[in-house]
Formats: sequence, C-alpha cells, structure tokens
Amino acid sequence: MRLKKRRVAAHPFPCNPGYAEPMPPATFRCVSPFTGQPIAREHRIAPPDEVDSVCLAAAEAFEWLWAQPRGRRVALLRGIADSIAALGESLLTIASEETGLSVPRLAGERDRTIFTLRMFADAVADGSCFRPAFDAANPGRAALPKPDLRRVLVPLGPVAVFGASNFPLAYSTAGGDTASALAAGCPVVVKGHPLHPGTGEMVAAAVGEAVRSAGCHHGVFAYLPCGGGGERELAIGQELVTHPAIAAVGFTGSFKGGMALHKLAGARASPIPVFAEMGSINPVFILPDALAREGAAIAQKLFGSFTNSNGQMCTKPGLVIVQGGPGAEAFAEVLAALVNSAPAQTMLSDRIRSSFLSRLHDVGEVPGVDAVARSRPSPDSGIYQPAILLRTAAATLSRFPTLHDECFGPAMILVVCRDAEEMQRAAANMPGALAAAIFAAESDHAVAQPLTAALVRRVGRLVFNGLTTGVEVSPAMVHGGPYPATNQPHTTAVGIMALERWCRPVCYQNAPEGLLAGELR
Amino acid sequence: MRLKKRRVAAHPFPCNPGYAEPMPPATFRCVSPFTGQPIAREHRIAPPDEVDSVCLAAAEAFEWLWAQPRGRRVALLRGIADSIAALGESLLTIASEETGLSVPRLAGERDRTIFTLRMFADAVADGSCFRPAFDAANPGRAALPKPDLRRVLVPLGPVAVFGASNFPLAYSTAGGDTASALAAGCPVVVKGHPLHPGTGEMVAAAVGEAVRSAGCHHGVFAYLPCGGGGERELAIGQELVTHPAIAAVGFTGSFKGGMALHKLAGARASPIPVFAEMGSINPVFILPDALAREGAAIAQKLFGSFTNSNGQMCTKPGLVIVQGGPGAEAFAEVLAALVNSAPAQTMLSDRIRSSFLSRLHDVGEVPGVDAVARSRPSPDSGIYQPAILLRTAAATLSRFPTLHDECFGPAMILVVCRDAEEMQRAAANMPGALAAAIFAAESDHAVAQPLTAALVRRVGRLVFNGLTTGVEVSPAMVHGGPYPATNQPHTTAVGIMALERWCRPVCYQNAPEGLLAGELR
Repeated sequence: MRLKKRRVAAHPFPCNPGYAEPMPPATFRCVSPFTGQPIAREHRIAPPDEVDSVCLAAAEAFEWLWAQPRGRRVALLRGIADSIAALGESLLTIASEETGLSVPRLAGERDRTIFTLRMFADAVADGSCFRPAFDAANPGRAALPKPDLRRVLVPLGPVAVFGASNFPLAYSTAGGDTASALAAGCPVVVKGHPLHPGTGEMVAAAVGEAVRSAGCHHGVFAYLPCGGGGERELAIGQELVTHPAIAAVGFTGSFKGGMALHKLAGARASPIPVFAEMGSINPVFILPDALAREGAAIAQKLFGSFTNSNGQMCTKPGLVIVQGGPGAEAFAEVLAALVNSAPAQTMLSDRIRSSFLSRLHDVGEVPGVDAVARSRPSPDSGIYQPAILLRTAAATLSRFPTLHDECFGPAMILVVCRDAEEMQRAAANMPGALAAAIFAAESDHAVAQPLTAALVRRVGRLVFNGLTTGVEVSPAMVHGGPYPATNQPHTTAVGIMALERWCRPVCYQNAPEGLLAGELR
Repeated sequence: MRLKKRRVAAHPFPCNPGYAEPMPPATFRCVSPFTGQPIAREHRIAPPDEVDSVCLAAAEAFEWLWAQPRGRRVALLRGIADSIAALGESLLTIASEETGLSVPRLAGERDRTIFTLRMFADAVADGSCFRPAFDAANPGRAALPKPDLRRVLVPLGPVAVFGASNFPLAYSTAGGDTASALAAGCPVVVKGHPLHPGTGEMVAAAVGEAVRSAGCHHGVFAYLPCGGGGERELAIGQELVTHPAIAAVGFTGSFKGGMALHKLAGARASPIPVFAEMGSINPVFILPDALAREGAAIAQKLFGSFTNSNGQMCTKPGLVIVQGGPGAEAFAEVLAALVNSAPAQTMLSDRIRSSFLSRLHDVGEVPGVDAVARSRPSPDSGIYQPAILLRTAAATLSRFPTLHDECFGPAMILVVCRDAEEMQRAAANMPGALAAAIFAAESDHAVAQPLTAALVRRVGRLVFNGLTTGVEVSPAMVHGGPYPATNQPHTTAVGIMALERWCRPVCYQNAPEGLLAGELR
C-alpha cells in the first residue's frame, strides 16, 4: 500500500457535503489479493478536521432526527436498500477486486445487506422494537397515588461504525451496525475500511443519495475514507472514538482491535459503550451415531464451511470434536481428501495472511498437534493461502488452552476424544464463542443432552445438525456471545435486538398528553 | 469504627454454610448516627478464603440453578419476601439504629423491597421477561432453507452485589439488584455494607432461610460481612469483582465507587460488566404559570423531596430552575422559611457528612452562589447536618459546570433565569441524570415542549408536576440514565427490564424438540 500526497480533482463520492477540504488530501491505493499489486484507483485519507466536522454534523443530525416522525427513518432505510440494489454488478466487481472474495459470494452478501436494511425498516414501521410499555395510574391507591408510567427506547446519539475486512458489504459501510443504528435513530459515522476503500466509497455514495432522497439532514450519515497503513490510518479511528459527539461504537473484527477500542472508549472523560464482535473458535461436536450414519456428508459440509471465504469468517468452525473409532477415521479420511484436493484461495490481505501463518505456527508448535491435510499449493502471484487440517487428541486440547484461540483463516483442528466423557469435558472447557454446533442422530440424544447444557452456557447460538457459518438474518437470530467472542455478552449484532445496542430506555411519569412522545400517546 | 481481632462464639447469622472459618475472625463495630458512638454488636470481616469459597459455591449453584425449572426461582423470591416480612419490627429498629433513618421511612423501604421481590417472582412465573422469540423454519425457501430459530434470555452467571448506604433494604442485601439477579437465574454474592452490618446480616439470614426452604443449592446466595474501614474492607470488594467465578456486578453508590469497580472489572483477564447506578443532579424546572398558581405548594413538596432522608437520595433534586420575577421571589421566600424552620437531621455516617461539607465548600466558593437558608443547628452529639438552600443565577450555572455535580446530602441550589431562553439553555447543558422534573400549567406547554425535548435526551425518567424522589416499583419504571448518572445508559435498576442486566440472549437453531430449553418447546 502506498501513501501519496497529491491533489485529486474531486471526491468521486462526495458523501460528506458539510465538509470542504482545506488542503490537498493524502491518498492511498489498496492491493488486489488476486494479483498482490496495488489497484490503480486512488483514495483520500480523511484529515483530522474532517473527523471533527462530520462528528459535529452527526450531533446536529441527531437532534434533527429525534424531532422527525419515525417514517423518515423507514424511508431512509428503504432508500438505502434501493440505492445499493441499483449499484448492480459494478459494486460486486469492485468488491471482489479489493477483497479477493468471489462475485457469487459477494452477491449473496449484497442481498443480505439489502434484506437487513429492509428488515429494520419494517421493524421501525411496526414500532414494537422500541418496547413501549405502559403502567396505568392509580390515583386512589392507599398511602400514595400510583403515577402513570410510560417507557420507550430512545436513541443514544451518533454511532461510530468500524466495519469488517471479511464482509465488505454486510458488516461494513451500510451493514448490520449502520442499519440498526439508523433504525434506532442514531446518525452514523463510518470509518472506511482500508482493505476495501472503493467498495466503501461506492456504498457511502449510495447511502448519501438515499439521505438526500429521504429529505434527511446531511449529518445523518458520514463516511471517513481511511487507509494507507500510516499513522493517520490509526489516528482516524482514535479521533472518532474519542470525539465528544460520539455516543457509542460498533466494531466487527479482531479481538485485538475490538479490545483496543473498548479500552479507548472506556478511558474517555465521558465513557461510551463499544459493541465489539470479535470472532471465536466455534466448536462443532459430532456424536458417534451421526458420524457413523452420515460422516461423509458431514465432512463435505464441514469442508465447505471452514474453507468458505478461505476460512475468513467469524463463525468458521475452528474445532471439530469427534469420538475416536472407525467412524472417526473414515470421517477424517474423507475430510483430508477434500482438503488435499482443494485449490488454494486468496486471503483478504497480506497482513491477514501473515497473522494466520504466525498463529498457525504457534498451533503447530503445540506437541501432539499434527497437520494431516493441506490444499494445493498457492499460485506464484497474488495473496493465496492453502487450507490446512490439523489433528490432535482431546487430552492435548485440555492441556494447551491456546488451541481454543481463534485462527482466522483456512485452518481447522480435528479433536479426537477417547469417550463421551472426554467430549463432555471438552465442551465444559470451551471459552465463550459466537456459535457452536452439535451433529446428533436421535439415538445420540442421551449424550447430546449434557453437551447441549454445557454449550448453551458458552455460546450465543447453538446449531443442531448444521454448521455455524451462514448467520440467518431473522428477528430471533443471535450473533453475539460471552467474552472473548464479544465484549458485551448481553447483545447481538444480527436480528432485531441488534437495534437495542444503540438505545436506552426513558420513562415519562405523569406526562400530559401534549408533552408525550408520539408513540406513547 | 473499631477493628478488633478476637474470637466470637458463632456467627449470629450463619448464611454461608459452605464455609468453615479457619482462624479467629477480625471483627468491627459500626457507629450510630443518633449518638455518634459505636454500637455494641460486633461483626465479622470476611477473610480472603471466604470470598473464594462463596464465589466457588456460587459457580456451582449457577449450574444447579440452570438445570432447575423456573418455579424454583419463583418459590425462592416469594420465600425471601416472606422471610423479610417475618422479621417484623426488629429489622426496622436495627436498620434505624445503624443508618439514622426513621422507622416509618424504613418501613416504607422494607415494604418496597418485599414488593420488588414479589414483582420479580411474578415476572419469572409469567416468563415473558425472558423475551422468548420464534422464527419459523421454511424448508422450501429458494437458494437455502430457512432454519428454525428460537431465542431466549439466559443468565450470565454469579452476580456480585454492592449495596447502597442510603437504602439499607431496597438497594442492599436483598434489594433490587439481588432480586433481579436471582430472578434472572444468577446466584448472588453480596458484599455487606459496612454502615449497616446488623441490618445486612439479619436480611442475609432471612434470605438463607428462604434458600433452604425453597430447597435451593446453598451457593445461590452468600453474604460477605465487611467493614472496619481497614485494608480488608477495600480488599473484599476487589477480591469479589476480580474472582473468576463472578460474571457481573451490581453497584449502587457514589460516582467514585462505581467508576472504580467499572475500571477494575474492565481490567480483568476476562472483563465483566458492572452496572453502576451513581446518582445525579436531577434538575427540577418550574415554569412561570405553574409557579404563579401553586408556587407555595410546589415549594412545600420540593422541601420535602430534597430533605427526605436528609438529602441522601440518588434522586434528590439538586437544582431547581425558575424564571425570575415576583412569583420566583415569593416561591424562594416560602422555600427558605421551610428550610430555616426545619430541624437538622442525621447523616448516614461521619464520612458521608465530611464529603457533603467538602462538596458544599466547593460550591460555596463559586462566585455568585449564596446560601439563602439553613436549618436549625445540629445537636451537640450524633452525626447531624442542617439542610442548606443556595441560590444563583443561570449565567453562573452555565459558567461553572461544577454546579452540575451531585452534592450528596441536604443541599439544593435555586437557579434563577432571566427568561425562557435561558431556562431552555440550562436544560440543554444538563449532564446525564437519573431523573428530571417539569412543573407546568396547561398555559406553560409552549415553553414546556422544547424543555421536554431537551431533558428527555439527558435523563432516564422525566416527571411532570411531581418530584424525582419516590421511584415507583413498577414494570415500566426506568431508574438509570446517561453517564455520569450510570455507566450503562441502556439499563435500568428498577422495573422488570432490570433483570435483563443479568441476562444474555441465546439462539437455538434447528434444535430437536428434546434438546430445547423448556420455555422454547
């Protein structure tokens, strides 16, 4: 990545109309994983006064938005969905070029993003997501009259969104955090992701278009172009999180990044919440009868799941736990064959590949962990990485807790247990995770029962006879979980409840009709 | 307070049966505010291994409680309510002796505590507080089948409760935090409050009795006796918050105390949430026509509110804002006369009185702030403090933000504005508060409208034509608010939602009927 200082004619996507740049902007280019070479397009890097300017505009827009009927937000969310849909193939082309993810994978992600925006629009229109509650007065109550109490969720204030490298659409500029924050009534300031700046700018322009069409205050949404790997890249995030106008932060990414923001926000003069979704190990347990009956089919699904997007998913199954025996050996053989015959895929960036290799090295150093399969070698150019299947015994897993840490990329550890008891112990020792899965035949249920009990205490979602990847966008979904999967176990990043992260309850006591919030009349 | 090391025959209230003391315990005595002298009763101070022992028992009880039907918790909560009711007058006598609060005030608080326990019992029996949600499967959906998703709130784990000095019953050993945590399914470890150890032990014994009667695991509730002002007093809280078995913390008290726990819990290897309710300035706005029509009646109510429990309430109105003129002068005169003729009341402790005086000194140093009324002098013995009414101009309030900080004790500042605009500006500059109040006649509504809009952004509860003290225990109540009133604006310490602090959502995906949690079948 190159950092250059030179004048560019105009912003290709002028999504922050309140801001006029005083100086020739610094620019950067990002690298295509397919070639390993910088892409020709240049992107601005937001200077400090732009961060300040968009945050102040967001604060103004917050007041403006509060006074608007909810229909305004519904129109905005639907407008954003339509604008993104209207970008067509060009969005997918640029996103694929920047991330190395396939166009079909990105098309699915784009549809998911649009679906999310519409789901929140419907929820806002319905209104029950703001949890209105009414306690009737009882003026005649003995001792003291009981007051009239009416509660509703109100927005916290402007939200800073840090998108994910691995979901350039669904967890980025106009992804779940942005959609749920706007639905809540919070203006959004997005820190543009340095690995997909073109995608980010294109989506930001689509959002800006929808902001104008819906007749919204321009400060309702801003996008801060960011990248180049220099000091400024880090500084933009810090300036944003510590800006007095910002009331909450949404983050999807690494454990290290999430906890750094968590600490930064907690150290502010006025601390604000950070909602960090940081990935996890997502264990998959396959019980003996399920393994015996459909081991090959499960191996096929599991292979697809852990190599999906080259393993760069927060819900990637990192550990698969089976009971030793002929079923396990047959299963391991099918899985290894699938891995061995697969081509190497691209990684999102060179840095992510390096982190993966360094983590893989640490895992490989653990005595008793063996690499048992590896995909076909990488091409000479581009940022490629073959998938790797490792194997160890449950006793090793319990002796080396580092094996519970996420390895972001195409690696999975097959853990072989001696018996059901050892499997149960492995479940009981799992750290917090976004999700876990259990494959169980009807005849496995006696073993599945205590396993379910142990896992449900440790995860945000428990999947049966399916895999942890593929998070359905649906009201009851939970994409969250105990630390270290997230820093806020009581929340979810997907599903209608995701909106509550950006809200707080307010109670009106004995309010005259004319002074009540509309929805409480 | 005296710190003594000597053997006591037996714990008067052996509420931690799992723990056998290895050494002669350290003991302390607390001081009665009525006399300023130590009370004869001696109280143990929990040693480090007792903290460890009760936390481990709580972890065990957490697993046990999870596996129990919810009816067990309902029985426990109702049992605790009944046990506390059965303590009768002796509880009020000891609580009054330790806190200096009046017996009628404590009787009300006791009834409130019992009501809270029963409210949560009813909520658990009903089950909707756990927010079950169901998204039906659609196996025939194009592209991919839609899974069956079922969400429910589950408990976080053992909760540490730090009670309040000023509510020895309702926000202490078996108060709102304990009741809501047990309702959520979380075992509770209470750090006994050093200012009311006899009250705490008596309530803890009543809870212990209910735990046994309901057939619960003994680790479901523990009380750590704590006091004496030495190193050990501080250490007990630190050991508790940093114990690996503890999953969340409830705190009611000072800003300093709450933020210290917040930082301590955030710095753990595995950070946990602290829900700190820290008090605030709770401004009261009286609009001109309301002032003209019923100024004297409002002055009477306001006097009662700010001197209730000698001003030692987190919802005490700290600022009362009026528009200058004859109405304001008449109002100020009535208020001053009430203050001048009132007797001095006790403070909870000498340290709380010292903090109050030190804070009052700082406020008094602000140029343009005048003391305009003061209650009758204190008696020679005991920990008494007269109430004080201060007065300043709105311009001074806006120039010296320190006037927005809480002054815990019997002081209130009358703020006189030049006009409605200045009053509106005062509202817009308010920091986060638990509550605010507006007195407005029908004819004041044009002014009340923007005032309401400004205040609702800054408070957890907005009261009309009434005062902020007297927090109704009712499902829709919100006792929370933006920082610095609390560190978790999205939560409430009173009302049914208080239970959600101790919960997190879990989603079951495609779970076979037999493996689903009971309430999701």
